[in-house]
Amino acid sequence: MEEQFESLEKIKIDSLEEILGRKFPVLNDGFIRVIDYMGGDESIVQAARVSYGKGTKKVNEDKGLIRYLLRNFHTTPFEMCEIKLHVRVPMDTWRQWIRHRTANVNEYSTRYSLAIDSTQKTDPDEWRFQAKDNKQGSEGFFDNAIGSKLTEREEELQQFARDIYQERLQLGVAREQARKDLPLSTYTEAYWKIDLHNLLNFLALRMDSHAQIEIRSYASVIGNEIVSRWCPIAWEAFQDYRMNSMSFTGPEIEIMKILFAGDAAGAKKLAEEFGWLNEINGKLSRNRERLEFEDKLETLGLKKPW
Amino acid sequence: MEEQFESLEKIKIDSLEEILGRKFPVLNDGFIRVIDYMGGDESIVQAARVSYGKGTKKVNEDKGLIRYLLRNFHTTPFEMCEIKLHVRVPMDTWRQWIRHRTANVNEYSTRYSLAIDSTQKTDPDEWRFQAKDNKQGSEGFFDNAIGSKLTEREEELQQFARDIYQERLQLGVAREQARKDLPLSTYTEAYWKIDLHNLLNFLALRMDSHAQIEIRSYASVIGNEIVSRWCPIAWEAFQDYRMNSMSFTGPEIEIMKILFAGDAAGAKKLAEEFGWLNEINGKLSRNRERLEFEDKLETLGLKKPW
Amino acid sequence: MEEQFESLEKIKIDSLEEILGRKFPVLNDGFIRVIDYMGGDESIVQAARVSYGKGTKKVNEDKGLIRYLLRNFHTTPFEMCEIKLHVRVPMDTWRQWIRHRTANVNEYSTRYSLAIDSTQKTDPDEWRFQAKDNKQGSEGFFDNAIGSKLTEREEELQQFARDIYQERLQLGVAREQARKDLPLSTYTEAYWKIDLHNLLNFLALRMDSHAQIEIRSYASVIGNEIVSRWCPIAWEAFQDYRMNSMSFTGPEIEIMKILFAGDAAGAKKLAEEFGWLNEINGKLSRNRERLEFEDKLETLGLKKPW
Amino acid sequence: MEEQFESLEKIKIDSLEEILGRKFPVLNDGFIRVIDYMGGDESIVQAARVSYGKGTKKVNEDKGLIRYLLRNFHTTPFEMCEIKLHVRVPMDTWRQWIRHRTANVNEYSTRYSLAIDSTQKTDPDEWRFQAKDNKQGSEGFFDNAIGSKLTEREEELQQFARDIYQERLQLGVAREQARKDLPLSTYTEAYWKIDLHNLLNFLALRMDSHAQIEIRSYASVIGNEIVSRWCPIAWEAFQDYRMNSMSFTGPEIEIMKILFAGDAAGAKKLAEEFGWLNEINGKLSRNRERLEFEDKLETLGLKKPW
Repeated sequence: MEEQFESLEKIKIDSLEEILGRKFPVLNDGFIRVIDYMGGDESIVQAARVSYGKGTKKVNEDKGLIRYLLRNFHTTPFEMCEIKLHVRVPMDTWRQWIRHRTANVNEYSTRYSLAIDSTQKTDPDEWRFQAKDNKQGSEGFFDNAIGSKLTEREEELQQFARDIYQERLQLGVAREQARKDLPLSTYTEAYWKIDLHNLLNFLALRMDSHAQIEIRSYASVIGNEIVSRWCPIAWEAFQDYRMNSMSFTGPEIEIMKILFAGDAAGAKKLAEEFGWLNEINGKLSRNRERLEFEDKLETLGLKKPW
Repeated sequence: MEEQFESLEKIKIDSLEEILGRKFPVLNDGFIRVIDYMGGDESIVQAARVSYGKGTKKVNEDKGLIRYLLRNFHTTPFEMCEIKLHVRVPMDTWRQWIRHRTANVNEYSTRYSLAIDSTQKTDPDEWRFQAKDNKQGSEGFFDNAIGSKLTEREEELQQFARDIYQERLQLGVAREQARKDLPLSTYTEAYWKIDLHNLLNFLALRMDSHAQIEIRSYASVIGNEIVSRWCPIAWEAFQDYRMNSMSFTGPEIEIMKILFAGDAAGAKKLAEEFGWLNEINGKLSRNRERLEFEDKLETLGLKKPW
Repeated sequence: MEEQFESLEKIKIDSLEEILGRKFPVLNDGFIRVIDYMGGDESIVQAARVSYGKGTKKVNEDKGLIRYLLRNFHTTPFEMCEIKLHVRVPMDTWRQWIRHRTANVNEYSTRYSLAIDSTQKTDPDEWRFQAKDNKQGSEGFFDNAIGSKLTEREEELQQFARDIYQERLQLGVAREQARKDLPLSTYTEAYWKIDLHNLLNFLALRMDSHAQIEIRSYASVIGNEIVSRWCPIAWEAFQDYRMNSMSFTGPEIEIMKILFAGDAAGAKKLAEEFGWLNEINGKLSRNRERLEFEDKLETLGLKKPW
Repeated sequence: MEEQFESLEKIKIDSLEEILGRKFPVLNDGFIRVIDYMGGDESIVQAARVSYGKGTKKVNEDKGLIRYLLRNFHTTPFEMCEIKLHVRVPMDTWRQWIRHRTANVNEYSTRYSLAIDSTQKTDPDEWRFQAKDNKQGSEGFFDNAIGSKLTEREEELQQFARDIYQERLQLGVAREQARKDLPLSTYTEAYWKIDLHNLLNFLALRMDSHAQIEIRSYASVIGNEIVSRWCPIAWEAFQDYRMNSMSFTGPEIEIMKILFAGDAAGAKKLAEEFGWLNEINGKLSRNRERLEFEDKLETLGLKKPW
């Protein structure tokens, strides 16, 4: 039994140790790399056992315990794992990233040093249309003709901005002031240290399909390349219970109960009472709760009762 | 006695109520205004009294109690006051501001909405030289001839950046992507909510003479115009015990003891042992601890013993 | 339109104002009362609108917006509301309470003042059995005969503990030391200040049926008596989307899809692959994930396919 | 140069590695041991260098850099070091400890498991008198005669409390309820994980002479035995700039300036204006600010000018 535990631990450490310091490229000139870490799957178990005293000691229950903890929001044992990353990110993306307040941060200072001479560049086939149904999203890509033009103009602007930055510095303007008009696409770097619980929260939000594609690219590398190696059991549980889970609201459950009892008319009636089926000019009006529920039903292969 | 307390409270509320919602202008197009607040000097006292049970009940001790708490780092009663500000700030400044993690924030979204069409502009007489002794500071201003040229170029760049932003939007590029090259000087807005203890920490750092002048302008308005009206007793204590205080390190105290005992030679000898008086080519080499101590001695009107 | 908004706000304020300072009794000698608050439903809307710029301005969309925000984990606008409570709680319950780190706290000091002369007492019909299936729960109540005996012994112990506390103080023992053997049932008091987002997280955990009955009693008063009056729209949304919601894991969804496609055998086969149907001596062995899923199916009125 | 860095790092790691897992005893039955850690002095430097870009690269400046950072409240690099301790503490002490909200915690659960059968016991010569001048302190020890009596009574109470706990459990009372009257002296255990910056804040408060002796015992072990080995350079800087530092308030500095200018009468006059020298019945009335200043002057070997 004990050996099984030992070997689990060994596998994990080997595989994260293997990529320590390795730069995973993201976007045109960004990267993520692991600087240091503390703990792993086995520390989650170890911490939980302090809480439970001598309650669960069998080694073959480790995986089950981690899964149980994550499924039931016992979050503190996951805080016992800590990781430190070195990231290189466009400032525009960093503006979103830094909103997660539960991490420790040391960012490259453009007051003290020259701004990094690199910007996020967009290839002609990477320009995205404004989404029609989602005010804060994008969908589809421009064709190459327009894309090329956009890329060219991007290049012009970035070059001009850098020229002005250099002009200022050469004249002796203070770095803290010279930087004021750098484009948001300018890369910055930081050490970013966070515990596993808060990292998983970050990933749940930033690997989500609604997250902007830039930060999603970073989050995906952290999740798929790093956490998957660092804490493989917790990572699998996170997939099963967070990323691939589906939540039904109280009203949705009420409707489903009636639906599963075979009373489609009653289910429809309840939806009407919830105000989900209001009509404008004889057509169903847009109702977000109804649309979200319809999506879920479709995922499950169920017909909506209206 | 009771009346005295009542009237203190009344004075405070009146004076903050008076400026509720009023925009205090900062920089060329920024502002700060108070949206809402909870508590004041009297809530600090009230919270401290919960801790102390029935220990201190005399109303005329209120001021003394607040000063005692602040002087001795009893910080929790100050967390019982909360304020919510609406701020308009260049993104460059906001990048510094947001590093304070203990506040609640709702920022204007340029994913969802059009970026605010305003940037921080620099007047010809506002361009600052890089500081010579401080890698992260500025000192002195450019003359008007060069300043005018710098302002002109700033205007060109900001105009070009906005043109490109508009071009992208007109072509249908998603807002979340179109914004990527906006200059850091672009204004953003946010609701920012924080408790008094953490706000004072923010002010101690950002009203300091080492803080960049832009964020210092905001911090000064918050301190001098808002906190001074909101919690006048705590504000005065903060001046006396934080802003205007001076701290001596352990080594400095050792030297001062010897100095005050009249043994200047001994004081010098100790400084030598600390490595403060090393020489290079017969000249005192640069030693930050010694320089800081010399500054403090000078402030006190004392002569350095070397 | 504007009036509608005005009146919503008015209703809310009136109804929370009405109970400001009123002590809601909890347990034998505990209480909760509202000392102060900032914001309400309308501040959630106001903060969200800063994020969205001028995107959603129609007043009749307020309720829909709050519900949308809560349903989709847009948590920052809820942080814009703040409340300060005065609570009186047994130290045993306080030990659980204080684990929520996102609040501001001023607790009664038994170093500075005499310990409160009151303890949580248990009536004969309130003694609970250890739960059989749940190592950290209770179920059912003792009969009066045993209950009376337990209550009597409780009284003896609490009296003895207080006597010893008094003895120590009369001899001149320091308060900070005299308190060392007070029973955990001793009441403490605190000011507890928290924002609405974090308060809802607290309530989700502590109003849950798995929470210990003592802290659940406090949480229920906060939720049902206070938040329901303070932010009635957010409170209703919280019921619908958090308290009464049900989440299905990735594996559960896979099984349900097959089940709803009419393939019960396939659903069972998948559960076998997940290891949910292992047998010991010809009987299904205990598997937490299977049991949780069976509970959910039962709630929905569905038959398990094994 | 590089070797020097290497060897510094080596010394540190060796010396903390040496005590990994070793239990340092505290009080009669408590302990502290290091479970895991991440980083050390060299990570502080490493993180600072990310902020500074390529500004300071010389290895022999490492120590100076760490000292500079700590002296000037550049706190984020210290957050890059993390340590995880296993502690065993009386619940009474834990109640103070847990007020530091910036740590990750997994505490032994007395809901799930039997309460630890051990309490903090007080030897006859350890009973302390209530301090006369400090409502929240103690001073001096009882003689053996009274001390023995107190210890005997303590033993009686602790035994009685444990008996009742056992009685309840034997009758089948739920653990979550049976524990309700355990004395605060009962030991609990926890994993406690914190970064170096927040740990130093904890130590500054809890190693202070005003901290209660019990928590001070724990803090001293953490500081003197653990941090001193883990980050010896940071630890030394912390001694010099925090533990052994002395701060003068704005008013105190004003008085000192006049005093050092040789105008003792003027200094006294200013103190009068501050209200420090008010008299009651011809005697100086008690004024905390004046008393604190007098203490500082005495430490420096200076005479008070009144």
